[in-house]
Amino acid sequence: MMDRPRSPPLDALLGQEISVLDHGFIRVMDYMGNDDAIVQAARVSYGSGTRSVRDDRHLIRYLLRHRHTTPFEMAEIKLHVKLPIFVARQWIRHRMASVNEYSARYSLLDREFYIPAEDAIASQSGENKQGRAGAVSLDRAGAVGETMTGSAERAYATYLELLNEAAEGFVPDPQKQGVARELARAVLPVSFYTQWYWKIDLHNLLHFLALRADPHAQHEIRCYAREILRIVQAWVPHTYEAFIDYRLDAVDISAPALRVVRQIVAGETVDQASSGLSLREWRELSALLGSAL
Amino acid sequence: MMDRPRSPPLDALLGQEISVLDHGFIRVMDYMGNDDAIVQAARVSYGSGTRSVRDDRHLIRYLLRHRHTTPFEMAEIKLHVKLPIFVARQWIRHRMASVNEYSARYSLLDREFYIPAEDAIASQSGENKQGRAGAVSLDRAGAVGETMTGSAERAYATYLELLNEAAEGFVPDPQKQGVARELARAVLPVSFYTQWYWKIDLHNLLHFLALRADPHAQHEIRCYAREILRIVQAWVPHTYEAFIDYRLDAVDISAPALRVVRQIVAGETVDQASSGLSLREWRELSALLGSAL
Amino acid sequence: MMDRPRSPPLDALLGQEISVLDHGFIRVMDYMGNDDAIVQAARVSYGSGTRSVRDDRHLIRYLLRHRHTTPFEMAEIKLHVKLPIFVARQWIRHRMASVNEYSARYSLLDREFYIPAEDAIASQSGENKQGRAGAVSLDRAGAVGETMTGSAERAYATYLELLNEAAEGFVPDPQKQGVARELARAVLPVSFYTQWYWKIDLHNLLHFLALRADPHAQHEIRCYAREILRIVQAWVPHTYEAFIDYRLDAVDISAPALRVVRQIVAGETVDQASSGLSLREWRELSALLGSAL
Amino acid sequence: MMDRPRSPPLDALLGQEISVLDHGFIRVMDYMGNDDAIVQAARVSYGSGTRSVRDDRHLIRYLLRHRHTTPFEMAEIKLHVKLPIFVARQWIRHRMASVNEYSARYSLLDREFYIPAEDAIASQSGENKQGRAGAVSLDRAGAVGETMTGSAERAYATYLELLNEAAEGFVPDPQKQGVARELARAVLPVSFYTQWYWKIDLHNLLHFLALRADPHAQHEIRCYAREILRIVQAWVPHTYEAFIDYRLDAVDISAPALRVVRQIVAGETVDQASSGLSLREWRELSALLGSAL
Repeated sequence: MMDRPRSPPLDALLGQEISVLDHGFIRVMDYMGNDDAIVQAARVSYGSGTRSVRDDRHLIRYLLRHRHTTPFEMAEIKLHVKLPIFVARQWIRHRMASVNEYSARYSLLDREFYIPAEDAIASQSGENKQGRAGAVSLDRAGAVGETMTGSAERAYATYLELLNEAAEGFVPDPQKQGVARELARAVLPVSFYTQWYWKIDLHNLLHFLALRADPHAQHEIRCYAREILRIVQAWVPHTYEAFIDYRLDAVDISAPALRVVRQIVAGETVDQASSGLSLREWRELSALLGSAL
Repeated sequence: MMDRPRSPPLDALLGQEISVLDHGFIRVMDYMGNDDAIVQAARVSYGSGTRSVRDDRHLIRYLLRHRHTTPFEMAEIKLHVKLPIFVARQWIRHRMASVNEYSARYSLLDREFYIPAEDAIASQSGENKQGRAGAVSLDRAGAVGETMTGSAERAYATYLELLNEAAEGFVPDPQKQGVARELARAVLPVSFYTQWYWKIDLHNLLHFLALRADPHAQHEIRCYAREILRIVQAWVPHTYEAFIDYRLDAVDISAPALRVVRQIVAGETVDQASSGLSLREWRELSALLGSAL
Repeated sequence: MMDRPRSPPLDALLGQEISVLDHGFIRVMDYMGNDDAIVQAARVSYGSGTRSVRDDRHLIRYLLRHRHTTPFEMAEIKLHVKLPIFVARQWIRHRMASVNEYSARYSLLDREFYIPAEDAIASQSGENKQGRAGAVSLDRAGAVGETMTGSAERAYATYLELLNEAAEGFVPDPQKQGVARELARAVLPVSFYTQWYWKIDLHNLLHFLALRADPHAQHEIRCYAREILRIVQAWVPHTYEAFIDYRLDAVDISAPALRVVRQIVAGETVDQASSGLSLREWRELSALLGSAL
Repeated sequence: MMDRPRSPPLDALLGQEISVLDHGFIRVMDYMGNDDAIVQAARVSYGSGTRSVRDDRHLIRYLLRHRHTTPFEMAEIKLHVKLPIFVARQWIRHRMASVNEYSARYSLLDREFYIPAEDAIASQSGENKQGRAGAVSLDRAGAVGETMTGSAERAYATYLELLNEAAEGFVPDPQKQGVARELARAVLPVSFYTQWYWKIDLHNLLHFLALRADPHAQHEIRCYAREILRIVQAWVPHTYEAFIDYRLDAVDISAPALRVVRQIVAGETVDQASSGLSLREWRELSALLGSAL
């Protein structure tokens, strides 16, 4: 009897809670496929072209380099995730996934909310679209944390009062009518934790990671992305390595910027004025090449 | 020169804010296609089978009756919607749509939150009695509304204090460091309003409406669904009529329940015990047939 | 160490070729989840509403009856399918799936084409009378089969001649230039077999089966759907049973037709003229109720 | 009264057949949105970050450069396309689109098939995965064209004979029974033309074009992609320009290759052995930089 393809390092992680933020976690519930399954699908699809790449590792690198993405859809993973609502709202924008979320219409929410660690409390950046500039002072961070905690606690107390149900630390008032759960939860802030099962194929997971492990993503969702990267590394090591080289740490060079790079490589002198690049693009290219142009 | 297909009654609605709940709205921003475009696509796909149905209205009814859904994908609509975050969280579960949401990472949220009308508090609490008492009294509903308002106001004051930016009714303290917008917003409850552009094809919109205009959907999202139904009626009147008859007001009858209906129609006597239906299904069928079986 | 959820009856099928048509097959390559995984996801999402349904079988029936479809997305299956191109063209219209198809751009196609069995020729021609006569005789069916075979053989000979590559039963002419595979294949008819890996979640698979196991679907794709139904039965027996009762053998009754059924059940007399139904709908309802109205 | 956003240059193209290949065409049937609609959606989503980019053209360039793709989903186009079946089979792999195809189950197919122009008839490439090497000789190309034409003509004659319906150039034999259309079409080769309505949003269209206007795509589908590029240029000129610069003519540089580029720019000497790149990647980088490294 044939067995399903396995990934022993991922088997070892199955069911374990990996902590994220103050109360969150990620837990691998199930998965399907491995690096071999990707190679098998690629050899069917791309035929003799891929047969000349004999080595599985190189074939996977080739696929990712040339954006032959369909074989990566042949692997699938299902995670149990506990996360703040505001993170869930960013996460759910990735539509090519299946989700079953804990419902606050039917069930009571726990007294669990996210308070950022002191070094994660940053001020608003004035200059660019990025949300955070440097961290605020430790003093101020401590005060901010207390303010946020007090605010969440008060909201939860109001929630319990509206529900008027027996709950931990709450004795209902028999004289008062309780409000529907689906309504009472409206007072809870987006820092509260929710939970869901999230199932996605590897191609779409890599796309999620490319966006959410990026420095432009909000700190909190990056904490989750970082742990999922480790899961991917255990699950499909060849794919992980290729993904880092050809996607996560790779760069796009625009047609105009490529012309500049070619001039430099050819030993020509080029400046921003003559490059055809805007000042912004010129600086981006400069940073990319690791040298003042 | 050819013109794009139009729907004059929908043109008349373009850009107008249709109020929903206390501060929300729906605004038709753009659309593509009409009943004729659906008919045109159907005649291509289903060929002579559909050509025998000469009348457009009957062809559309035929398509919806037989779940030939692809022609309805040929029409598209784009709405601007303002809605509470907890409604947005239900709404976004419909993945076959395009969304651009106002971002609280980059922009300040307004002091606008949803407080249910008193009769909505009362009736929802009655409908959703998960082991609790029935509808709350109007008196209690009034008190609930005040509690929710106070809670939201306090949360917004905390939000402004954390941001420490100049805002309406708030003077920043020059001694204090402001917190990044993406962090400060974590204290705001899910009753706060957000906004988005939402674009979807008619087939997926009808699916959204079948679920969200249903009595099992939460009151607040049904208020939006009800207004969108009116928009659909103006836009594609034949499709709207067929949708009501064959989807929204239609019923599914399971194989076991159909056997019971056939027995009744044939004049046989049938009771729950002999029907093969569970008590729950027997009652559902009974309600459906509008008579005690 | 935790194990992945399994379905022992499906494990027993893994890797086995199930024959379909004259040269086709279906082979289960991998899967993820089982009836329990669906129940687990449902209890998270629908909370106490589903907790009152203690029994797993009844919970699954409840989910399918009320179109709570997201838990069925938590199970996934991957099939290896060999099928005629014209069947593949119908199959691929189901977009919510992942596919890696054998590529005739890169690889040589085998001399394998579909010739319908004589009774399939006869009966399809009878069923699909678009203004033509009924079923063809077995004699004529035999002649048709021979004509189709001759036509496919000639096309394949032309394919080999264009390629001018060494192949089974073909010796290339060293004087002639061969044509690229991606071009030469243009002469092959849609009766030729192709192969693919096809991966889909259970919710979307049930939707595929509802459409493709239906009598309106073409005979050939129904042969595949029938075998997949057996696979689903082995994999998730509770879901299979519920799917048959609430989807495949269930019926939709439109709002106007429901009014008629209610009148009948109430003992009233009703005829087509007074029913508000078109003659076509009246006949459909009559057939459904198993009695001349 | 507000009007729908328009693109006057695309209005001028509405309904016109743009010829592709020997019998194919593309016709713009309808569209929704323009460059302004993309900008409008972006300003909602990316807030103040995008407000600092005052100029619409630069904002669109910024969006494409940073892969902020959702605003491009706000524009939609619907094309009527006539194309050979083997091209349709590649095209349909793009799942994020809506399709209504002419059905050969219900309707008669015309005697129209694709025969490549003589300069498009190429030999099989021996070395790489690419289908075509150089063109075959004109003599051989002429012979190939005749062979393909003869093969298609014979198949069509068999099709008519099986159908035994009155058709152009065919008189049915009253003694013979006709075969169902859905069966008879199985003898037709994939060079025959089919037609469909195809509707897709601009984001997904650009993805389609990035893959199908690429030199690795098969010649025939590239002919269609090239015409659609012209349509996009007329419709959304800013988006078109940015797409060419940041996607179509842009390049990806992997993390290891970027290290090499940085060394070169810094004036260091680097060779393949010390670069960490495979020989294949070294050559690809060399070609990219337009100079022997």
